[in-house]
Amino acid sequence: MEMAEESFQDQGSVQHCFGCGSENVEGMRIKSFWDDGIDSAVCHWVADPKYCGGSPEILYGGTIASLIDCHSVNLVVALEYRKEQRPIGSDPKIACVSANLNVNFRKPVPINKTIQLKANVLKCEGRKTWVACTLSVDGLACADGEVLVVRLKSA
Amino acid sequence: MEMAEESFQDQGSVQHCFGCGSENVEGMRIKSFWDDGIDSAVCHWVADPKYCGGSPEILYGGTIASLIDCHSVNLVVALEYRKEQRPIGSDPKIACVSANLNVNFRKPVPINKTIQLKANVLKCEGRKTWVACTLSVDGLACADGEVLVVRLKSA
Repeated sequence: MEMAEESFQDQGSVQHCFGCGSENVEGMRIKSFWDDGIDSAVCHWVADPKYCGGSPEILYGGTIASLIDCHSVNLVVALEYRKEQRPIGSDPKIACVSANLNVNFRKPVPINKTIQLKANVLKCEGRKTWVACTLSVDGLACADGEVLVVRLKSA
Repeated sequence: MEMAEESFQDQGSVQHCFGCGSENVEGMRIKSFWDDGIDSAVCHWVADPKYCGGSPEILYGGTIASLIDCHSVNLVVALEYRKEQRPIGSDPKIACVSANLNVNFRKPVPINKTIQLKANVLKCEGRKTWVACTLSVDGLACADGEVLVVRLKSA
């Protein structure tokens, strides 16, 4: 089991991003960690009430999509650093983006509970990695998605 | 050509939602209008700089997904009211949710430009409506998606 003391983001994986940038003080600032599976990561997050959807008690679908997208991309960034056997955030920086995001909204997500995200790699081909991610609350899966993440070529 | 003076949201389609709720002052507050196509809607939006992605110049992918999701759902809500030949937001309220969101991120979206969203209905079966939505900037399509929107049964 590999466990970083700091989240991927706090190690410098991403700085600005609204979803996960450690320096975006107005953002969601999710924190992703190695999970105890192989090539997998976990994140826990509690939504501010402003991120509600059609009713004040339910999390906004766009935020659900953002969580799945961002956590999945962060897993791939961390894996790309690991492949090169160097610390997350070390130079030269590795950047990845999502090319496709496909989310199934299966149950309403209560807004006042801790959300758990679990992401794991499905497949990897060159600069492309396919990630599956599940969002659950109190052990109940409420949404899931797949993200196609692409590593950008170095500048 | 059908053109409302007020946006769907300001007519009362959705109140709380982070993406489009007219009363969520901390939210994105997108505004959707009838477009000149059949069963289609348009939205223009300029992002606050906080909604950046991996770099400060580029819009966050989660926000792109949110825009596509929210505008598409709002189109369906408006259409459901129209089917019943009554004003948007009138009682009994009509509520719709997304069941699936599939987004292709094709080009980076510059954050300081006006974004245009165009959504149109692909198919309708009972309480399910499939919507296609394109996000473009200066006439260039940067992202597109499909949303499966489901009308909730009345309480």
